[in-house]
Amino acid sequence: MKIVGVGAGPNLLTLDAINAIKNAKIIYGSKRAIEIAKKYINCKSTIVSEIKDYNLAKLKEIPKDAVVLSTGDPMLSGLGFLDGEVISGISSLQIACARLKISLTNLAIITMHGRNIEKGKIAIVNELKKGKNVFLLPDPKFGVQPLAEFLQKHNLKVQIAVCENLAYPDERIEIGTTANPPSKESDLYCIVLVNTSHFSF
Amino acid sequence: MKIVGVGAGPNLLTLDAINAIKNAKIIYGSKRAIEIAKKYINCKSTIVSEIKDYNLAKLKEIPKDAVVLSTGDPMLSGLGFLDGEVISGISSLQIACARLKISLTNLAIITMHGRNIEKGKIAIVNELKKGKNVFLLPDPKFGVQPLAEFLQKHNLKVQIAVCENLAYPDERIEIGTTANPPSKESDLYCIVLVNTSHFSF
Repeated sequence: MKIVGVGAGPNLLTLDAINAIKNAKIIYGSKRAIEIAKKYINCKSTIVSEIKDYNLAKLKEIPKDAVVLSTGDPMLSGLGFLDGEVISGISSLQIACARLKISLTNLAIITMHGRNIEKGKIAIVNELKKGKNVFLLPDPKFGVQPLAEFLQKHNLKVQIAVCENLAYPDERIEIGTTANPPSKESDLYCIVLVNTSHFSF
Repeated sequence: MKIVGVGAGPNLLTLDAINAIKNAKIIYGSKRAIEIAKKYINCKSTIVSEIKDYNLAKLKEIPKDAVVLSTGDPMLSGLGFLDGEVISGISSLQIACARLKISLTNLAIITMHGRNIEKGKIAIVNELKKGKNVFLLPDPKFGVQPLAEFLQKHNLKVQIAVCENLAYPDERIEIGTTANPPSKESDLYCIVLVNTSHFSF
C-alpha cells in the first residue's frame, strides 16, 4: 500500500505523488482527496473508491496494492498510520505558516478533532505559556468563540487567526484577538494562535 | 519576491513551485536548491544566481522580482522570513516522519543549527519529559555522540534516529539508543528522538 499526501488544496501535489497516482491500479480516498488528484488519475485503467467509513477495521480492508490518498500530509492527522510507504504532502499547517509568516519551529501542533477536548485545552495553555505559537486542528465541539473565551479566562493574550479553505480559490484568513475573535465561515479551517511574547526555540 | 520551497530532495517539487520556477526571470538559491529545481528552470530566459553569503544585509539586496529557492520548506529554518509570497515545500521533517511513521502532532521541532546550544538542550529535555518526540536540526557543535551522552546523563531513554540525505538516492536512516547511538556518515542529516513513553497530544 502507498499512502499519498495530495496536499491541503489544489496544485500542491508533488512529483512523487503525481507519479504514484498515475501508476495506481486501485485508488482509495475521500471525495476531496480524489478531487485534488483526479487530473492525474488514469480513468481507463484505475479503479477509484471513495472512503466513506473511517472505522479502522474498514480501513484495514483496503487492498494491499492500493494507493490511498490523504489530504494534506498523511502524518498530520491523516492516514499515515496505515501499513505502507508514505509520500508526504503539503499540509494546512505549512500553508498557514507561509501565509502568516510564522516559523514551523517554536510552534506546537495540536489536534483536537475527535480527541479529548479537555486534554487539548491543557496542552494549549501549557504551550502558550512557554511562549510557543499553536497550530490547532479544531473540533466542532470547541470552535473559535469558546476557544477565545477560554484563552481570555486564562489571561492569555494571543492573536487568533482563522484560516479557511487554504490553497483553494476561496481561501480566507481572518485575524482577531481573544476579546474580538475572528469569525468562522467555513467548516474546512484551522486556527493559529500567535503568541505576542517571544521565545528563542 | 517569491520564496519557493523546493523540498528536501529530488522529486518533491509541487505544481505551484514548478509553476513559479518556470515563470521566473531571476532565480536565487543555494547550489543544492538550484540543482533540485534545474529541470524546470528556463535556461534561455532566466538569470540564475547562487547564494553564497546568507548575511541578512546581503539577502536584502536580492531584487524584488526574483524567485528565491529554499530547500525543504521556507518556514522551517529556511528563507521564508524574507519579504514576499512563500510557496511551501516538503521538508526533511515530513520525510523523516513518513519514514519513521511518526505523527507530526506530539512532536517538538527544535533547530539548534547556528542557535544557542544550551537553550536547545533545555528545550530537548523539557519536550522529552512531557512525552513528546523531538525533531532536531542539529548544529555541528552538538552532534549525535554528545547528544546521546547528554540524554543518558538526564536519564532520558529514547530511541535516536539519524536521518541522512532524505529523499536522495543515498538516503540512510539508522536507529540506535542513548547507550548505542547511531553513526553519522553525512553532513546532510537530521535527528529524531523517539520517546518510548506515550502522550495523547
